Amino acid sequence: MTLILALDFGGTKLAAGTVEAGSREWLRRESQLSPKNGDALNDLEIMRSLISAVLDNRRADAIGVSFGGPVDAQTGIVRLSHHVPGWENIPLKLLLEEEYKAPVSIDNDANVAAIGEHRFGSGQGYDSLFYITISTGVGGGWILNNQLWQGTGGMAGEIGHIVVDPRGPVCLCGKRGCVERFASGPYIAQNARELLEKVAQQSTSSGENVQGDILRQLVDNNVDLITGQIVSLAASNGDELAKSVLYTAAWALGVGIGNVANLMNPQRFILGGGVTKAGDSFWSIVRKTAHQTALPEVNFEIVRAVLGDDAPLWGAVALGLDISYSGYRI
Amino acid sequence: MTLILALDFGGTKLAAGTVEAGSREWLRRESQLSPKNGDALNDLEIMRSLISAVLDNRRADAIGVSFGGPVDAQTGIVRLSHHVPGWENIPLKLLLEEEYKAPVSIDNDANVAAIGEHRFGSGQGYDSLFYITISTGVGGGWILNNQLWQGTGGMAGEIGHIVVDPRGPVCLCGKRGCVERFASGPYIAQNARELLEKVAQQSTSSGENVQGDILRQLVDNNVDLITGQIVSLAASNGDELAKSVLYTAAWALGVGIGNVANLMNPQRFILGGGVTKAGDSFWSIVRKTAHQTALPEVNFEIVRAVLGDDAPLWGAVALGLDISYSGYRI
Repeated sequence: MTLILALDFGGTKLAAGTVEAGSREWLRRESQLSPKNGDALNDLEIMRSLISAVLDNRRADAIGVSFGGPVDAQTGIVRLSHHVPGWENIPLKLLLEEEYKAPVSIDNDANVAAIGEHRFGSGQGYDSLFYITISTGVGGGWILNNQLWQGTGGMAGEIGHIVVDPRGPVCLCGKRGCVERFASGPYIAQNARELLEKVAQQSTSSGENVQGDILRQLVDNNVDLITGQIVSLAASNGDELAKSVLYTAAWALGVGIGNVANLMNPQRFILGGGVTKAGDSFWSIVRKTAHQTALPEVNFEIVRAVLGDDAPLWGAVALGLDISYSGYRI
Repeated sequence: MTLILALDFGGTKLAAGTVEAGSREWLRRESQLSPKNGDALNDLEIMRSLISAVLDNRRADAIGVSFGGPVDAQTGIVRLSHHVPGWENIPLKLLLEEEYKAPVSIDNDANVAAIGEHRFGSGQGYDSLFYITISTGVGGGWILNNQLWQGTGGMAGEIGHIVVDPRGPVCLCGKRGCVERFASGPYIAQNARELLEKVAQQSTSSGENVQGDILRQLVDNNVDLITGQIVSLAASNGDELAKSVLYTAAWALGVGIGNVANLMNPQRFILGGGVTKAGDSFWSIVRKTAHQTALPEVNFEIVRAVLGDDAPLWGAVALGLDISYSGYRI
């Protein structure tokens, strides 16, 4: 039996799994959180122990890898990780091929997750789709004509940095009003904190009731503890301030998706990542705004990623299967 | 010798040409303006006379067709023309195949012009490009992996209806702040007219000098005569009001292009259509805004279409060549 080894270097989490070709179930699967203040060497060491556990003295016939940051898919050289230092210009494909004596295929996490959902998830049977992950950042991966489209420099899919409001707040990238500036988890938290401050000042001067009470209670008045997830929780408990922050996030995402639909006309948008767990009203605003932004003749569906956090790992399985089918040997 | 017949149903102009396979020069080429208040039957009658002139008693081996409106490229049925009535659901491919006894390939003008520039123009040697026409409307055509990408419902390329300013003026499509709302020829003219009125009211109340004098003089104070072309001319003669309208058009186009670059990362953007003749300052604002909008890692060039108004006709040649190579017979 052909054995595929799938690896996910996720920035905050490392995971490895083995699958027999043709199976849809993990033979073995292990994961571990990436240490805080760690570096590339720590990550590699942890991954080695995960690999050893899942391989269980067998040899992999092919290895697929998802990496949480820009990678040159041709050479398999990591450009950098946005979360873990020391990954600059690491030849990860070469390292793994030498150590595990098996051919390696590697790409960034958004592309690999898109492949995962296409082959094993919500994208099965669809020949064009755009996978969007909305979590710490907002990124995407394209499947067109049943193939990954990476762009000429491997940079395609950056829906997070589409401008949806040129007069909006300044994003990490330097521009104003990017999708990510409204819709990523950390920015949802920041927007809620800023709005809380603003409301507090207004209520101090006017003496009115303070908005955002539920949100404040959830973090015991320590606004530094607010996360995107806590904003979601506050909104689902009826906090109006949290609702308006999430509404804006959903609106920005909807405008971005509608623009993309007009431009590329894919069959499906598949949304994954922590922020998509924000509840039904979040989803209905995304869908409504996207369909209002798209031309009436442009048809598409917006659906949930079904593989969840495992989308990159299953995509890595698909990468591994493809090189094993191709007969490529190192 | 294989003879290719190329047809362009352009909305305001009809054109036909013949080329021997392998040649880059027209054997014969004829064109005629579409009659005002005409309909599909008029267009077809005129096209028949143009075809008869360019075929010169020879038989075409294959026919390529560019149509100025949405077409089902699979069936060759025209959905409608935005300029000429009576084109609804006309089976143009079938009509031409029966009349001229040759296989026909047909697509909308933006897609066909993209093919033309890719095969014979500014896109030669590039495997990914986005062709944008900026004239009566703003539309585009995709070449990815050296192939046309039409989208799942044939609607890809609608950069004209990407929203770049959600608080902007209302577009024909019902949304606010689309690229087309700022950058198409008719909207450039409308925006100039509206700004002239506003300035006139302000100056009446304040008694200051009137902006837009040069523009007014060019149309003898009859603002209904203002066109996009006249706004360009006024701007190049130093009219500040005309300059600001064109600046906004170039800015909108630049934001649209930068967003598209982040999303799809093509090698080249190729711009054609009347508005692109607006001069160097227009182009430099488009380029500057696009590169500011795109992430620093996203590289691309913005270049002129070299085939000009002939891009759709040369694209039709490419369509004809492709079916003649494929051995397809009716």
